[in-house]
Amino acid sequence: MRSKQYPLYVGRFQPVHNGHIHAIRHVVSIHDGIIIAVGSSLTSHDKDNPFTFGERLQMLHLALAEAGIGLEKTVITGVPDIPYAHFLWVRLVEAMCPPFKLVYTNQPFTGRLFKEAGYEVRPIPFLERERYSGAEIRRRIILGVDWSQLVPASVYEYLVSIGGAERIRSLASSDEAV
Amino acid sequence: MRSKQYPLYVGRFQPVHNGHIHAIRHVVSIHDGIIIAVGSSLTSHDKDNPFTFGERLQMLHLALAEAGIGLEKTVITGVPDIPYAHFLWVRLVEAMCPPFKLVYTNQPFTGRLFKEAGYEVRPIPFLERERYSGAEIRRRIILGVDWSQLVPASVYEYLVSIGGAERIRSLASSDEAV
Amino acid sequence: MRSKQYPLYVGRFQPVHNGHIHAIRHVVSIHDGIIIAVGSSLTSHDKDNPFTFGERLQMLHLALAEAGIGLEKTVITGVPDIPYAHFLWVRLVEAMCPPFKLVYTNQPFTGRLFKEAGYEVRPIPFLERERYSGAEIRRRIILGVDWSQLVPASVYEYLVSIGGAERIRSLASSDEAV
Amino acid sequence: MRSKQYPLYVGRFQPVHNGHIHAIRHVVSIHDGIIIAVGSSLTSHDKDNPFTFGERLQMLHLALAEAGIGLEKTVITGVPDIPYAHFLWVRLVEAMCPPFKLVYTNQPFTGRLFKEAGYEVRPIPFLERERYSGAEIRRRIILGVDWSQLVPASVYEYLVSIGGAERIRSLASSDEAV
Amino acid sequence: MRSKQYPLYVGRFQPVHNGHIHAIRHVVSIHDGIIIAVGSSLTSHDKDNPFTFGERLQMLHLALAEAGIGLEKTVITGVPDIPYAHFLWVRLVEAMCPPFKLVYTNQPFTGRLFKEAGYEVRPIPFLERERYSGAEIRRRIILGVDWSQLVPASVYEYLVSIGGAERIRSLASSDEAV
Amino acid sequence: MRSKQYPLYVGRFQPVHNGHIHAIRHVVSIHDGIIIAVGSSLTSHDKDNPFTFGERLQMLHLALAEAGIGLEKTVITGVPDIPYAHFLWVRLVEAMCPPFKLVYTNQPFTGRLFKEAGYEVRPIPFLERERYSGAEIRRRIILGVDWSQLVPASVYEYLVSIGGAERIRSLASSDEAV
Repeated sequence: MRSKQYPLYVGRFQPVHNGHIHAIRHVVSIHDGIIIAVGSSLTSHDKDNPFTFGERLQMLHLALAEAGIGLEKTVITGVPDIPYAHFLWVRLVEAMCPPFKLVYTNQPFTGRLFKEAGYEVRPIPFLERERYSGAEIRRRIILGVDWSQLVPASVYEYLVSIGGAERIRSLASSDEAV
Repeated sequence: MRSKQYPLYVGRFQPVHNGHIHAIRHVVSIHDGIIIAVGSSLTSHDKDNPFTFGERLQMLHLALAEAGIGLEKTVITGVPDIPYAHFLWVRLVEAMCPPFKLVYTNQPFTGRLFKEAGYEVRPIPFLERERYSGAEIRRRIILGVDWSQLVPASVYEYLVSIGGAERIRSLASSDEAV
Repeated sequence: MRSKQYPLYVGRFQPVHNGHIHAIRHVVSIHDGIIIAVGSSLTSHDKDNPFTFGERLQMLHLALAEAGIGLEKTVITGVPDIPYAHFLWVRLVEAMCPPFKLVYTNQPFTGRLFKEAGYEVRPIPFLERERYSGAEIRRRIILGVDWSQLVPASVYEYLVSIGGAERIRSLASSDEAV
Repeated sequence: MRSKQYPLYVGRFQPVHNGHIHAIRHVVSIHDGIIIAVGSSLTSHDKDNPFTFGERLQMLHLALAEAGIGLEKTVITGVPDIPYAHFLWVRLVEAMCPPFKLVYTNQPFTGRLFKEAGYEVRPIPFLERERYSGAEIRRRIILGVDWSQLVPASVYEYLVSIGGAERIRSLASSDEAV
Repeated sequence: MRSKQYPLYVGRFQPVHNGHIHAIRHVVSIHDGIIIAVGSSLTSHDKDNPFTFGERLQMLHLALAEAGIGLEKTVITGVPDIPYAHFLWVRLVEAMCPPFKLVYTNQPFTGRLFKEAGYEVRPIPFLERERYSGAEIRRRIILGVDWSQLVPASVYEYLVSIGGAERIRSLASSDEAV
Repeated sequence: MRSKQYPLYVGRFQPVHNGHIHAIRHVVSIHDGIIIAVGSSLTSHDKDNPFTFGERLQMLHLALAEAGIGLEKTVITGVPDIPYAHFLWVRLVEAMCPPFKLVYTNQPFTGRLFKEAGYEVRPIPFLERERYSGAEIRRRIILGVDWSQLVPASVYEYLVSIGGAERIRSLASSDEAV
């Protein structure tokens, strides 16, 4: 892990979906491995961030196993938000990860912060972005539209077992109520 | 990972040493796997907490590989401190981990917090506690006494490569200076 | 207070109004007493949270006296928000209150958090919710519509004495300006 | 409560003891009532601050009832610490309390902060300070010396019921262990 | 500086523009000098607060030099936000500045907080407010409309040198993407 | 200021003394100017950090004027502490200052953090360090020993005018009392 340096991939994984696994497979096919940084790691139970870090960690383990991507090719870490003082965030990522030089992200703000700090930033070939996004999955769950094909089977089963859809709907209705 | 629930093992891993690996091996020999929670995850660069979470994650990966303990038997996570409001800490651990019912710790304060929250807490058979402790290793490094036998070979090599001993000595002298 | 356990009632009380007193009277009529938790206790001087905890405490004392509800039947406490890490909030409420098993709330998000933590959650029979709500009172104040009948007389008198309506209008106009 | 302004009395109440009740009785005998501010309200489970705000609130209610001091003469509130930025603390107290002009305290630092902010500060006649102090009670508990006479009977009974002495000893030994 | 007390002028300076310099010149023409407090000092890299305190400090130094306003007539300081607990903010400003009695601001919320704390608050004669505002400058940059005439020449040159316009556009597009 | 880059000098200035002015004169004699970063900017009213940033800013302005060092050669800024997560601190300094490449400090911990981040760090020739240090001045004030010769005359006069010595003694006795 020391001699071979892995690139960084940042996501919020709310929840883990097929687009994430597609991206991880893409990175792992090019490099020896991948650092998976779970962003907003301390945030949960709000409309856009329903799941805890522990739950997202479970989903990642399940999805990686299902995809046949060995854990020995991954380093999984969590990075909390730093509200307002965004200029500190890249330094925080550096402290929560093994060293890296290359960052994979399609998020413009994340990309900008890493570019300002001198990192090489590369986009990830999207897997039908309109469908495979956390926002789309949460939207479907709120509307009661089928979303089972957008996430790995093991993640779907897990979310059913913890009442994930019910939580998302409940958080959404709360937001409206407030 | 969902059907088989792992017990929790909390440590600060400043640095990872043979006592940690002994404990992890003990837990894994009894249970199917282990949740390794790295405490004080956001703290580094002070005398008692010299290394970042990223560095401690690297040491854990190296030491587990050296010990032949497969990553698929582990879930590694980080938990920051909550200064003062210690009553929140167990809830934070719960949010950063997969579900668990059993906690392995020899630290009385950690044990007390989990017991008050209703968890079963078990001690870990120590491996010569006077020698295999982070405090002892940091003490030896400051005094210039040999410490290479207290940590896995791969961790020793890693700490040499990042100038870990120099950092510990520097932080200790700073504390004296202030 | 120890032998007889009170149920919890959470509100923001911005400001205290007749609906709150109606709810407190309802709970006290069924149980021996009530724990009144003032939420967002550290928040004030924003459009939706104009009053400090000290001011809300005064309104509660005045309104309870006016309603003839003795303080010995109440435990009044304050609970700050925990932005983002909502999973910690129930544990914080527990630490700020005497023990309780039952929670009265009509707020879906509050209810969900307590239900996930294993509490019994009951709704409160509303007193004409469209009229008796903090949001409606603040809306009327901003628009210059009469609101005096929506709060206890002593609370109305108190709010006049501290320039409460002027503060609400001023905070609302500030928000527009920014 | 509005027309008659109460003086402020600040304490940490770790735990409530006879000295506190003596002080409260003294203030109430001179003035119409008292604002009791529980300091370090968010701190608990450390050696010097073993009990939560909820637990301290319960002790205060019990001890006031035992002393025959009616709740209608008191306003009880909590004030968290503001680490480092101590200059903000008086303003925080102001926001958490009804208005006051007079502060009773024997703590020099607390007194200084209120004096710098323009308040009148008066000392409280001590009730044998060496015996009636939270530090002395915690010291006796750790040493296994009898402390039952230093607190109101109802507080003693309450602390026994929640295992308070055991918690204090456990926190003390933890501190030594770390 | 001690004998002659300066009035306070608060702004966010995102970026420094001709309206700010107009206001500073106005205050300095009436009084001996001015305390310039840079608000939201720890916030940067968001759509409404693109620049760090260090960058805003540079812009102020450049613009004051260009305007021929000597630094010896100014005291420049930074004040971070205190989210939610707005009642603490005036006290924070007091701690970050030399003593003052008079506050110049056109911002209603800022004015209200200072008035509640007993300060005299005066408005500043605007220099064509629709044009000379940070929001207008950021809007023009996002839309690609010329903004060079709204800021001092030295500030324009500085912003070009650090890629300021590109940063603003990038932050704006990120916000849309999220 | 942009074309000519100043070196950084970090201090806590509790209070400003002749050693600081000696150091600033040294740096200014070699370079075009100096960035003076006031550390622990949000900390005050504790034994080791008695004065607010506003007060320290005043002392710096007075001492620089007395020493004949023009403000146009200085950029004065404040940097708060980041408890625990020390690895973020250098990034915070960068955000609070104009760009710099060279750091003057005699503090080993400060020096280490900047060296790890790639900065050149140089020591400052001390002016009789045993005498000219904030700790020594605070010690003398507590003991009632003459300290007037250790600070610039204008700083001495200022500290007398705000009751600085009394505050330091009061904070020291408070610490003992707690």
